[in-house]
Parts: sequence; structure tokens; C-alpha cells
Amino acid sequence: MASVDVPVALLGYGTVGAAVTRLLTESADDIERATGHRLRVVKALVRDPGKERDYPPPGGVLTTDVGEILDDPSIAVVAEVMGGVDPTGGYVLDALRGGKHVVTANKQLVARRGDELFEAASGAGVQLRFEASVCAAIPVIKVLRESLVVTNVHRVLGIVNGTTNFVLTEMEAGKSYAEALAEAQARGYAEADPTDDVSGADAAAKMAILATVAFNTRVRLDDVTYRGIAEIDPLDVAAARELDMVIRLVGTARLVDGAFDVRVSPALVDKQHPLAKVDGAFNAVMLQGDAIREITLEGPGAGGTETASAVIADMASVIGTMGTGFLQNDAAWRALPRLEEGASSSPFYFRLSVEDRPGALARVAEELARREISIARLLQHANGNGAALHVVTHEARSGSLTAALEALGALAEVHRCSLPLPVVSERGVVELGWA
Amino acid sequence: MASVDVPVALLGYGTVGAAVTRLLTESADDIERATGHRLRVVKALVRDPGKERDYPPPGGVLTTDVGEILDDPSIAVVAEVMGGVDPTGGYVLDALRGGKHVVTANKQLVARRGDELFEAASGAGVQLRFEASVCAAIPVIKVLRESLVVTNVHRVLGIVNGTTNFVLTEMEAGKSYAEALAEAQARGYAEADPTDDVSGADAAAKMAILATVAFNTRVRLDDVTYRGIAEIDPLDVAAARELDMVIRLVGTARLVDGAFDVRVSPALVDKQHPLAKVDGAFNAVMLQGDAIREITLEGPGAGGTETASAVIADMASVIGTMGTGFLQNDAAWRALPRLEEGASSSPFYFRLSVEDRPGALARVAEELARREISIARLLQHANGNGAALHVVTHEARSGSLTAALEALGALAEVHRCSLPLPVVSERGVVELGWA
Repeated sequence: MASVDVPVALLGYGTVGAAVTRLLTESADDIERATGHRLRVVKALVRDPGKERDYPPPGGVLTTDVGEILDDPSIAVVAEVMGGVDPTGGYVLDALRGGKHVVTANKQLVARRGDELFEAASGAGVQLRFEASVCAAIPVIKVLRESLVVTNVHRVLGIVNGTTNFVLTEMEAGKSYAEALAEAQARGYAEADPTDDVSGADAAAKMAILATVAFNTRVRLDDVTYRGIAEIDPLDVAAARELDMVIRLVGTARLVDGAFDVRVSPALVDKQHPLAKVDGAFNAVMLQGDAIREITLEGPGAGGTETASAVIADMASVIGTMGTGFLQNDAAWRALPRLEEGASSSPFYFRLSVEDRPGALARVAEELARREISIARLLQHANGNGAALHVVTHEARSGSLTAALEALGALAEVHRCSLPLPVVSERGVVELGWA
Repeated sequence: MASVDVPVALLGYGTVGAAVTRLLTESADDIERATGHRLRVVKALVRDPGKERDYPPPGGVLTTDVGEILDDPSIAVVAEVMGGVDPTGGYVLDALRGGKHVVTANKQLVARRGDELFEAASGAGVQLRFEASVCAAIPVIKVLRESLVVTNVHRVLGIVNGTTNFVLTEMEAGKSYAEALAEAQARGYAEADPTDDVSGADAAAKMAILATVAFNTRVRLDDVTYRGIAEIDPLDVAAARELDMVIRLVGTARLVDGAFDVRVSPALVDKQHPLAKVDGAFNAVMLQGDAIREITLEGPGAGGTETASAVIADMASVIGTMGTGFLQNDAAWRALPRLEEGASSSPFYFRLSVEDRPGALARVAEELARREISIARLLQHANGNGAALHVVTHEARSGSLTAALEALGALAEVHRCSLPLPVVSERGVVELGWA
């Protein structure tokens, strides 16, 4: 097949857009060897063409008029690297409806408006690829959609936010939450406004996308229960250490009796578990399925060049599969219900401040037993004129635990009761006998 | 695109062939949703069609005549799951030359006869895919070829043999080599004849394939320097522990000044290094490149179902990219030289039995310094009427180290000198600042 120039357009020309243009230029031969084609950026939508840029495109490429992209029939592939949901979503929809393949790095857009986008893509017979929207260059979307075609992935576990992983790693080393966050900001891992990261919202959007692709059902950002790390107390960090665990912001997506359960929460992770070993600002995603037991992908989950690498890989894959019918369908072909709140189960950790007198522990154990929650491990520390109880339960329904903690909070013996954290200790499907 | 039945054929119908047939049947809907097509096994080459099988194919599928596959123009894709190099290689070449796409799980075939196979594929304009030949369902070939299109991967580090990883993990827990190997055999991780695994030959074939794809140059099994684990002494295991390291069979592939260097050897791995954390019989491959820093893939590196999953993913990818020009070229488009023996450098560990008298250490240090090898860490243990010296060097040329060890062996003060083991401690390109 003779090499043909493929004109591509970018929506946005910030750090990622500039890196895409640079890598497309520097690696044009590599791309041609892989795809048989050369990709050339012919237009890039920006607000201010006069702004100084790191890697400026050739003259005439920058435009403020999205119509120059949407209305140009020679442009077959559009890469959306501008971010935001509005007006970005409208541009992407118009591009898809106009018969252009779209590659996007925008997790908020895919997690919030995936329905419309996929419907538009299917309707027009074009592809929507979004590798860069989850964990940058870690190729988890491609692996889920193309390598694990015949494995029913039923659980996804991930550390999908590098900022919080770094902050929690630093807290483990003795820093307070505020100190650790300041350090993350100083190193450029956290934004000046870190709300999206520390609240868990960023991780929740990524888990919604991963769950959608893994379970083939639409999971929206609104379907994800999430909590952030701001409330993590050094007391919890110390207790985790004593329990041979670490605290990490963990995303989980599971299929439970035909319903999906997707959540992001700080969790106690056993030090022997692979997720406990993810360093600093790195990300890792663990996929568990029938045919493969489990596969873990780890790497940098952010960065301009990393994101650009994923955008270009998606472009190459679009070109390499155009017209074959491959991945033309919406990944979400079935509609599964969301597991009802309270029905998910897990081992849990929580911390109580209790009066240091005989009988206090017995009252606590009694309230838990009443709701069929059994204690797996317990630490008790004298703490001024009271005691701190650190409790790890066996697997329990979260609804039962919430009710038990409310009852405990009402006891005269209990002064304070922390929020419960899930515990990640077993590897799930890992049985090492060969099939 | 309307769904069309795609007739496929298998060469071989053992554990993997049966698993391929089963998964193709059970997951036919998943495959159709991904590719737009249904894959149907119409022929499978076997020696004895009458043999009892776990998942027998429909009547008429088994055949002893390879011509029924090679000469049937309706068969577009052939999966080679019979193993061996001869006559398998001839069948695969004939299939490719006859215009059939081939998917193979055969690492020995690809590592030994990759040149011919790729030439035949390119000549006929068909694809040769071989995901299952390296680490079963861990999708490292697809990630290298399709996701890392624009990253110059310059280093691959891997634990690519589960048997030896399990044996070394058990030795760490106190078993002798023989006990650990017997345990691996009892669990089904090691064959009755474990030579290929423990000699490093199996890992070497996988590293040859990974290096070929990562560096885009032909690396044959003969180009890989390899050593096995049989000579690992419990003394080394104990010294590693004292140094906060573990011993693992590590494959490395590097580009050094435009030459490739690919080797498999037991190595001391820092306990903080990701490869030290690979559990039991699992495999892990770490890819380091310009645009991505590093990406690690971990999972089960063997197993019939896992291998079958990779074979089917390759079939789906062939169908999803047919006729587009994607990956139609040989991955090895350039001819790089092999780094000359002795020119590769690394930190090293070795062990000496020396006389326990003043001056012995000074003589050792002097011989090393003469060849510009500096000592990074040293342990000395009294040992009967002598002493054991455990030495970790800074980065040194392997040729210089070999010469130094020969000279040390000739000293009156030195009774015995172990083979040197490379040390894996730094993560290479990992700098966690965002780009």
C-alpha cells in the first residue's frame, strides 16, 4: 500500500498539542513504517494564535475558527487536546457526526458525555479512541479492548492518580497532609488548585471510563462513589504501618451479581499487595479476568509527552483499522444496573476513641456482632485519658458497617469514630496453578 | 459492515489449541462485537485424530493432512499452536507464502527463524503476529508495536520465566536449589525435564523476540548471552539478603552506542526495584523509552488459557487491520550490530573465599583498582579458617571484570572465586518530574 499523507487536526495547542506536533514530526518515519502513512498536522484550534509557544507549528496551521477543521473534508482524524467539557463536547460531536475519527485525551468529557459521543461515532461509522484520557501513556484502554477480547474482566483495581499517591507516600514518611501536598505542588505533581486530585474526582472519572470499557456498560462519573484523601489522619497512617499496610487512594470497579460497583476511596493496602508497591507519582491498573487471571500495567500516569504518545498511538490505530469494522461499535453494548449503595462488601478499617475502662471493647464488639460484622484484627493504644481502637473487620456489607458505626458513635464509651476505609489485602483471582 | 464468518485453522490441537477452540466458541459474541466477524475453527492439524481430548472440536475438523489447511483458499488465518521448530517452521512458511495470515505462540520458532518468517509475510502482504510467544497473555508485543509507536524504547528489563522466578523465591525462603526445583515440579510450574527453563534458554528466546520488536533490528537466539540458575549458591542468596537485594533471573536488552546487548543472567536485584516484587511464577516486563519514561506489564507468563487468550487477541487484531497496511512491515527494518562481548557494563556482585589474614583485602582491592573497577559495597564473613568476601562493584565493563576475576583467582590469598552476577538497582530513566 503506497504511503499517503493523512491530514490531521488538533483541537487545542497547549503542552499536549505541542508535544503531539513535535512527536509526529520527529517520529514520522516510525509512524510510516507502522501504518504505511504519514500524519501531518494541518490545522490546530487555539484561542490566541499570537501567543508564544514551545513548539510552534508551521505557519497557517493555527486557527481560531473551528469551522476550518470541521468543514474541511480532507481532515480524516481530529485529536482533541484542549480539555474542558464545554465547548469541547460540541466540537467533538460535530467532528464525529461529520465523519471524522476522533482521538481524545479528555477524561472529564468521556466520563460525563460518553453516551452522546459513542452514539455519534457509531452513527457516523467512525472511531472514538481515548487512550490518553486514562493514565496517559499506560495503554490500558487498548489492552482492555484489543488484547482482552475473550476474557471477562470482572474486577479493575487501580492507583490512577499520581498526585495523591505521592502525597500519601510522603505522609508515610512522616509528613503531615499539608506538608506533603505542599511538596507535591513544589515538584509540579499537584496543581495550584489541587481540588480535583485530592477530592478523588479525577480518579473517579478515570474509573468510570475503565469500568465502561471493562464491563461493556455505560458507567458515568455520577455512578462513581468517591472520597478524597484530605481527611486522612497521621493516626491512620501510623496504624496502617503497625498493621503492615499502607494507605493509598484506590479505585475499584467490580461486577457483583450482574451489577457494577465503582468507587474511589482511601484504602488500607497490604504491603505485599502489588498496589502498595507503586512508587510516588506512578499509576498502576490491575485487571482481573477469567482467561488471564490478572494483568497489571504500571507507569507514569501524567505528563505532556506521555499523553501525546498515547494520542499518537490512537491516531495510528485509527488509521490502521479504518474500514475494517474493528472497534466500530460502542464498547458499552449492554445496560447493567449500579449496585445499590450499602450492598458492596469489603473488609474495612476504622478507628474509635474510647474511654479506657473495662467493658468498652466488649460494647464495641457487641454492636458489631449484632450486624454480623466480625473483627479480623485489633490494635489498642492508650491515648491520654482514653484509648484509640484500630479495628480491621472481615468482609462486611458497607451498609451494615455504616449502621454499626452510627450505633457505636451513640455509645457513651465512644468519643469519636472515624470514617471507615476499605482494606485491600487479597489479590483476588490469583491462583498460580497453570490452567 | 455485515458480520462474515471467518474460517480459521489451527496447526496443533493440544492444551492451547483446545483452549483456543473453547474460547472462540464461548466468546463468539464478544469477538463479533469487537471485529464485526465470527471466527470459526474449520481445520486443525494433529498427529492422531483418534486421541481423547479435553475439548474435542466438531467432527471433520481434525486432520492429519496439512494440505487440507494450506491448500484451502477459504482459510484466511492460521494459528500455530503445535510448537517445535521442525516441521512447524515449514508449515508456517508455506501458510504465509500462500497468502494466509499467521498467529503463532512459538517462541523458539520466532527467535530462531524470524528472518525467514517475516520475509515471507512481507513478500505475501500478510501479517505474522506472535503475542503468545512471549509471556502468554501479557500483551507486551502489542504494546511495543502499537502503543509505543513514537517512543524510542532503548531498554527492556524482564522477568520472563516463571519457573526460575518461583525457584529463586523459594530459595530465598530457605530451600536449596534442588528442593525448590522439586517444589516447582510438584506444583506443575516446571517440566519433568526443566533444562530449558533453568538454563535460561527459554528466557533467552523471549528476550531475543522482545529486543527485535523494541529495537527494530533482528536479534536471534544466538545473539543472546545467557546463563541459568543452577549454579546459584545459598551463600549468594544469603549475601543478597544482607545487601537488601534478592536474586532473580533477569533478562536485559539495551541499545548501547548503536549496538544491541541482550542477555539473561541471574542478577542481584535491589528490594526496592519493581522486578524484585514480582511474585512467584509471575512475569514482568519493563519498557523504558524516550516519550514514556517506563511502563511495566506484569501477569502470568504461562498457562493454556492465558496463551489461548493471546492467540485469539492476535487473530482479532489481524482481522481488524487486514488491508489497511498496518503492521504489514517487518518490525526489524534496520540492521544494528551486536555489542562486542566484554563491552557491556553494569554494577556486579561476586564472592571470594580468601585467607583470613591481614593484607588479603588490600590485594583484592588492588587488582580491581588496576582495572578501574571500584568497590561500592563489601561484606566480609569469617568462614572456617578463611573468610568470604562479598563484593558489589560500581558500574564496570564486563570484560574488565572478567580479567580482574582471573587475576584474583591466581592470587595465593584467594581460594575460590564465584562467577559475577550483574546488579540491578536503579530504575534507569525514571525521573518523576512532569514533562
